[in-house]
Amino acid sequence: MDVLSQALLNPRSVAVVGASDNPAKATGRPQRFLAQAGYEGRAYFVNPRRETVQGEKAWPSLTALPEAPEHVYIMTGAEAAIEAVRECARTGVRVATILSAGFGEDGEAGREREDRLRAAAAEGQVRLVGPSSLGVVNPRTGVMLTGNAAFGEPDIPRGGVFVASQSGSVIGSLVSRARGRGIGFAGLVSTGGEADLSLGTICRAVLDDPGVTSYALFLESLRHADDLADFAAAADRAGKPVAVYKLGRSQEAAALTVSHTGALAGEDSESEAFFTACGFSRVTHFESLLEAPALLRRLPVPACRREARVGVITTTGGGGAIVVDQLAVRGLTVTAPSERLRAAMAAAGVPVPHSLIADIGLEGARHDSVTSALRLMQDSGEFDLIVFVIGSSARLNPELAVHAIAERGGHPVPVAAFALPEAAQAAELLHAAGVPAFRTPESCADVVAAAFARQPATIGDRARPAVVVAPDTASVLDELASAELLRGQGVTAAPAVGLDLAALLDSSGPLDLPFDYPVVVKALSGELPHKSDAGGVVLNVQDADGIRDAARTIAAAVAAHDPDIVIDRVLVQQMVGSGVAEALVGYRVSQDVGPVVVLSTGGVLAELFADSAVRLAPVTRETALEMIREVKGLAPLSGHRGAPAGDIDALADTVVGISRLAVDHPGVLEAEANPVSVGLEGKGVTALDALVRRTPARL
Amino acid sequence: MDVLSQALLNPRSVAVVGASDNPAKATGRPQRFLAQAGYEGRAYFVNPRRETVQGEKAWPSLTALPEAPEHVYIMTGAEAAIEAVRECARTGVRVATILSAGFGEDGEAGREREDRLRAAAAEGQVRLVGPSSLGVVNPRTGVMLTGNAAFGEPDIPRGGVFVASQSGSVIGSLVSRARGRGIGFAGLVSTGGEADLSLGTICRAVLDDPGVTSYALFLESLRHADDLADFAAAADRAGKPVAVYKLGRSQEAAALTVSHTGALAGEDSESEAFFTACGFSRVTHFESLLEAPALLRRLPVPACRREARVGVITTTGGGGAIVVDQLAVRGLTVTAPSERLRAAMAAAGVPVPHSLIADIGLEGARHDSVTSALRLMQDSGEFDLIVFVIGSSARLNPELAVHAIAERGGHPVPVAAFALPEAAQAAELLHAAGVPAFRTPESCADVVAAAFARQPATIGDRARPAVVVAPDTASVLDELASAELLRGQGVTAAPAVGLDLAALLDSSGPLDLPFDYPVVVKALSGELPHKSDAGGVVLNVQDADGIRDAARTIAAAVAAHDPDIVIDRVLVQQMVGSGVAEALVGYRVSQDVGPVVVLSTGGVLAELFADSAVRLAPVTRETALEMIREVKGLAPLSGHRGAPAGDIDALADTVVGISRLAVDHPGVLEAEANPVSVGLEGKGVTALDALVRRTPARL
Repeated sequence: MDVLSQALLNPRSVAVVGASDNPAKATGRPQRFLAQAGYEGRAYFVNPRRETVQGEKAWPSLTALPEAPEHVYIMTGAEAAIEAVRECARTGVRVATILSAGFGEDGEAGREREDRLRAAAAEGQVRLVGPSSLGVVNPRTGVMLTGNAAFGEPDIPRGGVFVASQSGSVIGSLVSRARGRGIGFAGLVSTGGEADLSLGTICRAVLDDPGVTSYALFLESLRHADDLADFAAAADRAGKPVAVYKLGRSQEAAALTVSHTGALAGEDSESEAFFTACGFSRVTHFESLLEAPALLRRLPVPACRREARVGVITTTGGGGAIVVDQLAVRGLTVTAPSERLRAAMAAAGVPVPHSLIADIGLEGARHDSVTSALRLMQDSGEFDLIVFVIGSSARLNPELAVHAIAERGGHPVPVAAFALPEAAQAAELLHAAGVPAFRTPESCADVVAAAFARQPATIGDRARPAVVVAPDTASVLDELASAELLRGQGVTAAPAVGLDLAALLDSSGPLDLPFDYPVVVKALSGELPHKSDAGGVVLNVQDADGIRDAARTIAAAVAAHDPDIVIDRVLVQQMVGSGVAEALVGYRVSQDVGPVVVLSTGGVLAELFADSAVRLAPVTRETALEMIREVKGLAPLSGHRGAPAGDIDALADTVVGISRLAVDHPGVLEAEANPVSVGLEGKGVTALDALVRRTPARL
Repeated sequence: MDVLSQALLNPRSVAVVGASDNPAKATGRPQRFLAQAGYEGRAYFVNPRRETVQGEKAWPSLTALPEAPEHVYIMTGAEAAIEAVRECARTGVRVATILSAGFGEDGEAGREREDRLRAAAAEGQVRLVGPSSLGVVNPRTGVMLTGNAAFGEPDIPRGGVFVASQSGSVIGSLVSRARGRGIGFAGLVSTGGEADLSLGTICRAVLDDPGVTSYALFLESLRHADDLADFAAAADRAGKPVAVYKLGRSQEAAALTVSHTGALAGEDSESEAFFTACGFSRVTHFESLLEAPALLRRLPVPACRREARVGVITTTGGGGAIVVDQLAVRGLTVTAPSERLRAAMAAAGVPVPHSLIADIGLEGARHDSVTSALRLMQDSGEFDLIVFVIGSSARLNPELAVHAIAERGGHPVPVAAFALPEAAQAAELLHAAGVPAFRTPESCADVVAAAFARQPATIGDRARPAVVVAPDTASVLDELASAELLRGQGVTAAPAVGLDLAALLDSSGPLDLPFDYPVVVKALSGELPHKSDAGGVVLNVQDADGIRDAARTIAAAVAAHDPDIVIDRVLVQQMVGSGVAEALVGYRVSQDVGPVVVLSTGGVLAELFADSAVRLAPVTRETALEMIREVKGLAPLSGHRGAPAGDIDALADTVVGISRLAVDHPGVLEAEANPVSVGLEGKGVTALDALVRRTPARL
C-alpha cells in the first residue's frame, strides 16, 4: 500500500484538531466514534484550551504530539485550519482532512483563504481532503474521522465498497440504507471542496487497498474530470468496477448544483459520454448506488448491451411481470427460455408455462425445485444473467427459495435477486453468498440495465482537453474553409467554389464551374454562421444568370439583416439530393470533459427529444456505429419499415473523421457538418453545410 | 353499509370450505389467521372427512351449518368449488371467495366450468370473488379469508387504504412493505379471475365503508373497464382518491400479461387515457402505490399540473438536489422561494441561500428553525405543496426536524417528507400525523408528479364503447366519403371532387373544377387505404391534361401493385400548402376502454418517440388544448424559437370534432385525418387526407 493510500484510509495514527469535550457536539464525535469502533491505532486530540477532552489528554498543538500522526482531522474555523495545515506540513503529517468551511465556495475572501491553505500544505508533504469534508471513515479498521452523527451508530457494515461523495450528507445516509442488507463498506470519504485531493485522486489512491473491491461514487459535478479519468483507467486495469450516481440529469438540478457547491454540473449528455468512456455504470436510482457494486463485480463487462441475454425466473408471476416491465422501459428485453430448456425443466419436475419468463409458481418455491430450475437455466448457455423474482417465501421461509439461490450464486452465470415482499434478511443472506439483491423492482432494473450498458474503459486513450478559449476570442471559419478542413478529416462535402461577388456581378455569360447545375448559392462569411435565417441561401439555381440573381438577392437580404456584415463572396455549391435521411455530426471541446463528438438527426424534434448520441472524441468506427444505433431518429437508415437502407458505413466514417479533430486539430473548439445527407447503402454521405470555430492562431 | 359491502369486507359470520387440520398448509391457514387476528364474528370450518380441524368442530357441509355465513372462502378443487357455490346459493350466502383454479384461464374445459360456476351462483344471491383469488382480508375486524402465508405475521397494519389487486402475491408483499412505516390497510382483496365481481365492482361496493379512505389498485389489465369507470365516478363523488399501478408500460410486459392471466394488458397509452378520465393517479414505482394515498388525501385535485407550485426545503443540500432532479425528469419544476419569503425567513433566524430550494442547512435541523421555516413557507401562498428533505436527524433525532414537520402537517398547504437516510420510525411518526413520507427520492417524485397530474374525473360523462366489430367485417370508406363524414364533424378538409376514370380519360379540354390549380390526383377506393405506397398519388398537377396523365399513371401503378383492385374513380383535390406544422388526428374504438381520440405529429419519428396524446372520446376543447401542449412535436405551433405560431384553436376544434364521432357516429370504428396541415394563427387547419372505417350497416 503506498503512503497516501495508507495515510488516507488506513492510518496507524490520527489526530483531531479542535476536539471538543462534549461528545454530543460534532467536534466531540470523532473521539467517541473512534472509541466505539475500537480503532487500534494511536489517536490524539488537540484542544489548546483544555487539559482533557472526554477523559483523555488534550494536546495543545500538533507540534506537541510525540509523533506526526499519519492523518489529521481539522474541525476548527477557517483561519485556524490554515494554521493547523501549516503545522501538519511542518511535522510531516501525510493527510489532513478539513471539516472547516469558508474557503473556495465563499467568494473572493474564501478563494484567497483556499490559496493560503494550499500554500500551507505545500510547505510539507501533506495532502488535503476537503475543505468542507464531512470526513473519512474506514469501518474495517475503526478509522472514524467524521463529525457526521450518522456514524454514531455502532457496527458500520464492513465490506468491499468504497464510497466517495461530493455531498457530505450522502455518506451517512448510504450507511443507514445499507444496514441489515449485507452490503458493507471498505471506506467512505466526503470529498468536500477538493482544494487538493480530488475525488478521482482519492479513489485512485485507495485502488491498491486489497479490501477495496468496488466503488460507489456520488457526484454533483465533473470537476477535476482528468483525475476521474486517470482513476477510471486504473480501476479498469485493476478489474474493480465503479457505479456512479450523478446529479444534474435535469437542467434544474444542474443549475442547483451551481448554487449549492459552486461547481457546474455540466451538460448531462457530456457526463454520460464521459462515464461511458470511463467504463463506469451510471445508475439513476439513489439506492442503486448501494446495490450496483455486487452485480458489477459478478458481471464481466459485456461487449455490447444489445446482446444482453437476461433470463427471468420467478415464483410469483405478478412480481416477474413487474421486473420485465421495468427492464423493458429501460430498453432491455428479457430472453425467454428455449423450448429445449423448458422441456428439460419439465423433465426435472419444474414445468414452466410457455412465456417470456420461467414462472415456476408458488408450488415451485421449494429448495429442490429452485435448485433444479436454476441449474438448468445457468447451464443452458442461453443467459448472461438470471434475475430471480422471489415471492412471499423470501420473507417467511428463506430455507425454500433463498437458500437455494444463495447456493447457486457461485456459478459463472450470475443470479440477481429481487424479493417482492420486504425481505432484508433474505438480502443479507444473498449478499453474503455473492448474490446481488435488490429492494425495489425499479432499482433492480436500473442496475441490470446499467451493468449491461457498461463498456470497456477507453478513457486511457482519449485526447486531453485542448486549451479552451473563451467563445468571444475564437474565430469562425467561413463555409468554404470549414468544409476544406473537414475534407481533411475524410468528410465528403458537397463540391463548391467561392466566387468574388463584385467580379461575378460584372461578368456575363456562362460560368466555368467544376460541377453541373442545379446549384445552391450561399453567402460566404465567417461572420454569418446562421446564414439561412439571414436570407443568405438560395436553392435550386439553374444557370449562370440565376447565380447572379441569387447573389444580388443574398447581398440585399444580408445587408437588411445586419448592415455591419458585408458580403463580398458567395459560395456556389452543387445541389445534392436529400438522401435517405439527414444527420448532424458535431464536435465541441467541453469545459468539463474535453472533446466530444455528437450525432443527431438535427432539427427541432431531435432537440426536443434530446435524441442524440454523445461520446468523448476521438471514437473508433465501432463506437460510431453504436452511436448511429443509439439515435432513434436515424432508425430509417437501417431500413426501418421496409424503406431502403442508408449508407451507415459512410456515416460512421464521417463521425470518426470529425471526432479525430481532437487529435488532428487541437485548436478547433467546435465543428459541425449539418445537414449530412445520407445516401442509399454504398452511395456515401455528403455534408451540405459546414461550420468550424477555432482558436485565433492555428495551433 | 349495503349488503354486498357488509358481506364482502365486514362479514359477521364466515366459513372456510376445504379447511385443513394442518395449520401450515394453505387450506389450514385461514383458521389460524382468523384466531390470531381475533376475528369476533362466527367462523365455521367445513371438512366432510374429519370430525375436527385444528381443535374445532369440522362441519360436513355448508348446508349443515346453523346459519348461512355471510362470506364463504372456498379452497377446494374446481368441481367441488362449483358444488360449494351451489350450496352457498341454496343457503343464502352473500359472498363466496374462491381460491380454486381451473376455470376461465384453463382452456375450453375451464371456460365451461366457469360458466357452470356462474350458473350455480345465479341460483341464489351469492356473488363471487375469484376464482384463483388469494383471498379477502380486513385487518380492522380480523377477517382473514386468505391462504397467503404473508398474512401469518401478526398485526397487519390497520389504516384507510383499500388494496385491490389482480395479482394475488402483491397483496401480501404490500403488507410487508407497509410494516413499521405508518401505512395501514382497511382491506385487501385479490380479485383473481373476476368471473363475477370485477375489481371495479368490488372497489365500488366498499366505497360506503367509512373506514375506507383511499384506494391502491394493482392492475394487470383493463378487463371490465366499465366497472372500473363506474367505481371511478363514484369514488370521485365520494372524494376518496385512487392510486393505480398498472403493468404493461412496455409491450413486453403487456404480452406477458396475456400469457400470465389470459387478459390483454392493452395499449398503454389507452390505459393512461382511461386513468386520466377516471381521475386516478397512476404511479410507476411499486412502493409508490403504498405511499401515494396519503399524499392524494391531502392534495385536492389540481386543475392542471402545469400550475403545480412545489417548494422544496431541506437540511441537506445534496438530498434536496436529488429530489429536485427527480421531479424535473418527471416534468415538474420546483418553485423557488420569493425574495420576500427569503427575507422573512432570514428575519426569523432561518436564512436560506439564493437558490431554487430553501436549504436551511445542517444547523437548521432544530425544532424551532424547522417550525419557523415551514410556517413561513406554508403561509406565503407561494406553494401548493412543500417537500421537506430531511437529513441524518430524521433517523437519529426525530425530536428535531421530524416532530416539527409532523406538527405542521395539518396546514392547508400539505408537506411531504423524504428522509435521505433510512428512517422508518420517522415515516411512521409522520404518517400518523398525516404527513406523507417517502422511502426513496424516486417514489417521492413519482407520487408528487402523479398527484399533480391527477384530473377531475370525467369518466361519468363518457360515451359507452360502441359494439366493436371484428376488423375483417368492417368497411373502409373511400377518401371522398371519409372527408365528407369528417366535414360533418366540423373538420375542414381540402376541397375535392371525385371523377369517373373512364369519363375523364374520354374527355378532352378543360375540366370544370370548383377550385384552382395546382391539384393533387389520387386513386379513389375504399380498398386502398395506403394509396401512397401503391403509387396512387400524384402531386402538383397543373391542368386538365395533367390530371388525365396522372389518372393513367395511377391506374397503371395500382394495377401493378395489386391486380385485384380496380380503380374506376380518381379524387382531384386542391393542393394546400404545408402550413406551420402537420398533425395526425385519429380516433378508434378500443376493445378495452372504448372510443379514444389520438393526436400526434404523424410520421416515423412521432411513432419512434411515442409522441402522442390519447384521451377517451369525446373530449372538451380544454382537453384538446391540453393534448396539443402534451405532444412535444407540436411545440412549433406555440411559436417555438421565434417561429410564427400556428392556429392552435382550429386544431383543437378538429380534435374535438373528431372525438365527437363517439357520440355522433357510434358505428365508426376508426377514423384518421392525416396529415392535417396547421396554418398560421387565425388561418385555420386543413385535413389533406381522411380515412374512416365503420360497421357495415350504419347504426
